[in-house]
Amino acid sequence: MLSTMQDVPLTVARILAHGSGVHGRALVTTWTGTGEPHRRSFADVGARAARLAHALHGLGVHEGEPVATLMWNNAEHLEGYLAVPSMGAVLHTLNLRLPPEQLAWIMRHAGDRVVLVNGSLLPLLAPLLPYLDDVEHVIVSGPGDLSALADVRPQVHDYEELLAAQPADPYPWPELDERQAAALCYTSGTTGEPKGVAYSHRSVYLHAMEVNAAASFGLTPAQTCLPVVPMFHVNAWGLPHAAFMAGSALLMPDRFLQPAPLADMIEAERPTVTAGVPTIWQGLLAELDARPRDVSSLHTVVSGGSACPPSLMKDFEERHGLRIVQAWGMTETSPLGSVAYPPPGLSPEEAWPYRVTQGLLPASVEFRLAGPDGRFLPWDGTSAGELEVRGPWIAGAYYGGKDGEPFRPADKFSEDGWLRTGDIGTMSPDGYLTLTDRAKDVIKSGGEWISSCELENHLMAHPDVTEAAVIAVPDEKWGERPLATVVLRDGATAGWPELHGFLGERVARWQLPERWALVPSVPKTSVGKFDKKVLRRQYAEGELKVTVLGAS
Amino acid sequence: MLSTMQDVPLTVARILAHGSGVHGRALVTTWTGTGEPHRRSFADVGARAARLAHALHGLGVHEGEPVATLMWNNAEHLEGYLAVPSMGAVLHTLNLRLPPEQLAWIMRHAGDRVVLVNGSLLPLLAPLLPYLDDVEHVIVSGPGDLSALADVRPQVHDYEELLAAQPADPYPWPELDERQAAALCYTSGTTGEPKGVAYSHRSVYLHAMEVNAAASFGLTPAQTCLPVVPMFHVNAWGLPHAAFMAGSALLMPDRFLQPAPLADMIEAERPTVTAGVPTIWQGLLAELDARPRDVSSLHTVVSGGSACPPSLMKDFEERHGLRIVQAWGMTETSPLGSVAYPPPGLSPEEAWPYRVTQGLLPASVEFRLAGPDGRFLPWDGTSAGELEVRGPWIAGAYYGGKDGEPFRPADKFSEDGWLRTGDIGTMSPDGYLTLTDRAKDVIKSGGEWISSCELENHLMAHPDVTEAAVIAVPDEKWGERPLATVVLRDGATAGWPELHGFLGERVARWQLPERWALVPSVPKTSVGKFDKKVLRRQYAEGELKVTVLGAS
Repeated sequence: MLSTMQDVPLTVARILAHGSGVHGRALVTTWTGTGEPHRRSFADVGARAARLAHALHGLGVHEGEPVATLMWNNAEHLEGYLAVPSMGAVLHTLNLRLPPEQLAWIMRHAGDRVVLVNGSLLPLLAPLLPYLDDVEHVIVSGPGDLSALADVRPQVHDYEELLAAQPADPYPWPELDERQAAALCYTSGTTGEPKGVAYSHRSVYLHAMEVNAAASFGLTPAQTCLPVVPMFHVNAWGLPHAAFMAGSALLMPDRFLQPAPLADMIEAERPTVTAGVPTIWQGLLAELDARPRDVSSLHTVVSGGSACPPSLMKDFEERHGLRIVQAWGMTETSPLGSVAYPPPGLSPEEAWPYRVTQGLLPASVEFRLAGPDGRFLPWDGTSAGELEVRGPWIAGAYYGGKDGEPFRPADKFSEDGWLRTGDIGTMSPDGYLTLTDRAKDVIKSGGEWISSCELENHLMAHPDVTEAAVIAVPDEKWGERPLATVVLRDGATAGWPELHGFLGERVARWQLPERWALVPSVPKTSVGKFDKKVLRRQYAEGELKVTVLGAS
Repeated sequence: MLSTMQDVPLTVARILAHGSGVHGRALVTTWTGTGEPHRRSFADVGARAARLAHALHGLGVHEGEPVATLMWNNAEHLEGYLAVPSMGAVLHTLNLRLPPEQLAWIMRHAGDRVVLVNGSLLPLLAPLLPYLDDVEHVIVSGPGDLSALADVRPQVHDYEELLAAQPADPYPWPELDERQAAALCYTSGTTGEPKGVAYSHRSVYLHAMEVNAAASFGLTPAQTCLPVVPMFHVNAWGLPHAAFMAGSALLMPDRFLQPAPLADMIEAERPTVTAGVPTIWQGLLAELDARPRDVSSLHTVVSGGSACPPSLMKDFEERHGLRIVQAWGMTETSPLGSVAYPPPGLSPEEAWPYRVTQGLLPASVEFRLAGPDGRFLPWDGTSAGELEVRGPWIAGAYYGGKDGEPFRPADKFSEDGWLRTGDIGTMSPDGYLTLTDRAKDVIKSGGEWISSCELENHLMAHPDVTEAAVIAVPDEKWGERPLATVVLRDGATAGWPELHGFLGERVARWQLPERWALVPSVPKTSVGKFDKKVLRRQYAEGELKVTVLGAS
């Protein structure tokens, strides 16, 4: 039987029209450091997005073409988020923390012809331009040193002047197929070349609806959302789209991502929902400990990108009344995969074991665990396998193989099209995911798996330990054994035997590292995750000073 | 650019798998009157839905075939809700309040071959069966007088026996196109033949996501949802699908829809979210006034189906602390069109004018107002036109025209495919819909429009008035004039001059009715709306005793 429903596509243009119309009075506030925050209504964002679309059309941007942004979280980036996909082009967010040569590789791979850039980021972009033959137009927003662009080949435009020169008429947004690409984001893969994920209008829209679910981040017109997670990091986890869809006010931190200005803007602007990676919350905790601020407006603090140390969650809650909610996802999952709200009706003690999981999956996301032999494992809370994921906002391929077609590496996608996450974990019978390690980080010792993450979390619960990263190192007898690299707090008194003993009370004896190394800080990737690749190289090249404790 | 996302359909089977798996411990509780409520886990609902699908498959039900239900709100109806669409058939909910001949017409029009029926409804179904040649199987759930089925032609099955005879294996749910029909519901149109709306898997799924948005009804595992609105009334406004998707517990009233048992079940089972038509809340208010119960668990009481008298909202809140949230929709809109949450940051007095509107539309729903000359009107809060609606869960046609194809009557769908609602209303600049009347109920007096609803709402705010319905009657001088039909409270003292004066303080003089009639009750349609068609006929046939006050 045919349905009789209207065939209306799910598109970013709908989010733009709805947010700037029905929620036109909602505000996006951009932090400016010491000055007055800059405020712009959703209605104005909509009007300026139309001007931006007129301008890009004038620069010859056509349907399906990527338009790059190298920008912080601010109102202008939001305008790009809405205008570029709505006109049928593809928003290509560039990760400003990538090494320059990787950034250039990605821009060449995508074929970026037009780049929107914040003035403060010109020192990053300008030196790359000689290597970017495709780039024809650089549109500069906000203050910056324009002298760096004095002799470059591409045409340079001022964002505000460009918008002012456009007609105030509505832009004739085209009717798009919801399966067309809306946004392009490259994974900051720690191995191999970066790989592009091309989100569709459909996936962006459905993901925004899920973010706004009460069981997820619950954005409504009564909320103010602070995306600390950068807009180049998996679309700031979908929060800009979701907030504009729901009419939730947005507080944009711009480039002020250090703990002190974050604490200041939370106290001043009173956001209710925020999201970022654990290192952000680690920094904010230290800042609030040193100089308390009123952060009581926040009722939902989402932590994702990597596992949040349970000790950090506890400290935050006990010392500042802020409850961290863990969520799991990755570039390939848009990223919302699961959110760790505990089941209802539990005491704080009963809820805790659920809160430290990666969480419960929504209806649109399917999980399965592939065991070492490829068979799927039961959800019994103990069987550990590689997490595979399916759903309408989950990637099924990467962008731009050799012939320009999407490609599906076998280590990333199963034969029946599920995403292979490279994460090892278990599922509880009631649907909670616990990740124990990355498939490549797990330590394969004498036929057993040792979780590097578990050791790290235990170590970071020790009062003298600031950071800890555990890597596998070759071992003649066991194949691999764990090496613990540790950052100690100023004035720490603990030595290796004490940390070894501390760990010995918490994990099985055969899992205890024999090798220990003090490091000044754990190397991080561009999005703030531990970069174990660097540690493995440092170990291989003898750069770490390793202490070996008595044989276990 | 091609997107690289997985192409995963949005289907009822996904809701079934997710709810019965991840939320398997959630409960659906069915009220049984004086006995113990019956409780069944979502996991059991899922297992039984699989058995039901096996059984229906065994009866030859094929993809695209309608399977009818004539049932109350209970766990077994929920099993049908999930099993029938998931196996690729189409759930056809029958409105048990329709006149028998209309019910028979609808069943013949749909070609129902299999009917699931509650035993208590056999007295309604049995007499129709001789006229229903297509019906081959009647599946009876729950206690009832089976003797009525002694000599009928169709094969009669007991629901529980049928399920028990099926394999316990999972059912091989087919992979469906999300645009296939999932459910069929006929409008109880007050004019002309009933018209079928065939919801798609996509529309049901997206609608459930919207119901679960924090800005809508916000179902989560921490909620218990009581759908008082019947499951045959626009899928109980999508609540069963939404609750199963979100893992929200369900409290099903079965056939106990009278005020006293509703108050009892709210006190005993402590639901948090409920939804029904205003007449239900009117009855519950009187019940709670007469015999108070603890209804403090409810934080969201949704009223829809027709405009909720503001006096009822005030009385409910002042006397019992229950806040009614108005929502607007219709069979053709799945039904969620708008929800009347006020903008944030307002005082109760400032919020009130927003709360008595039909509400704010979500991103997936588009509204426009067509003026008398067909041109679209501005959203200025005063320009009144016919509401037209577009969106992925809005009907674009009706089911089964003469050649079996969907059909699009010009008075119901615009040339560009929007639904013409037949409702007259205004839109505020900030996106709130206020319906002033049905296009067919508006009183066209001397070239001006008088809203019958507005007069009714004012009249019903008078302490002596229980119900009031205003209809247009022919008038030589003005074309049409309003006639007020009024139900007075027992012991009322007010006469027509007093009510006329009461109204005179609230509306313009030229809108005041000259004609008044006392009625024992206002006739209602099968879903509890005022049936003005009957009043117009009664007036035309001289059955109303009309008093004419001095000329206005």
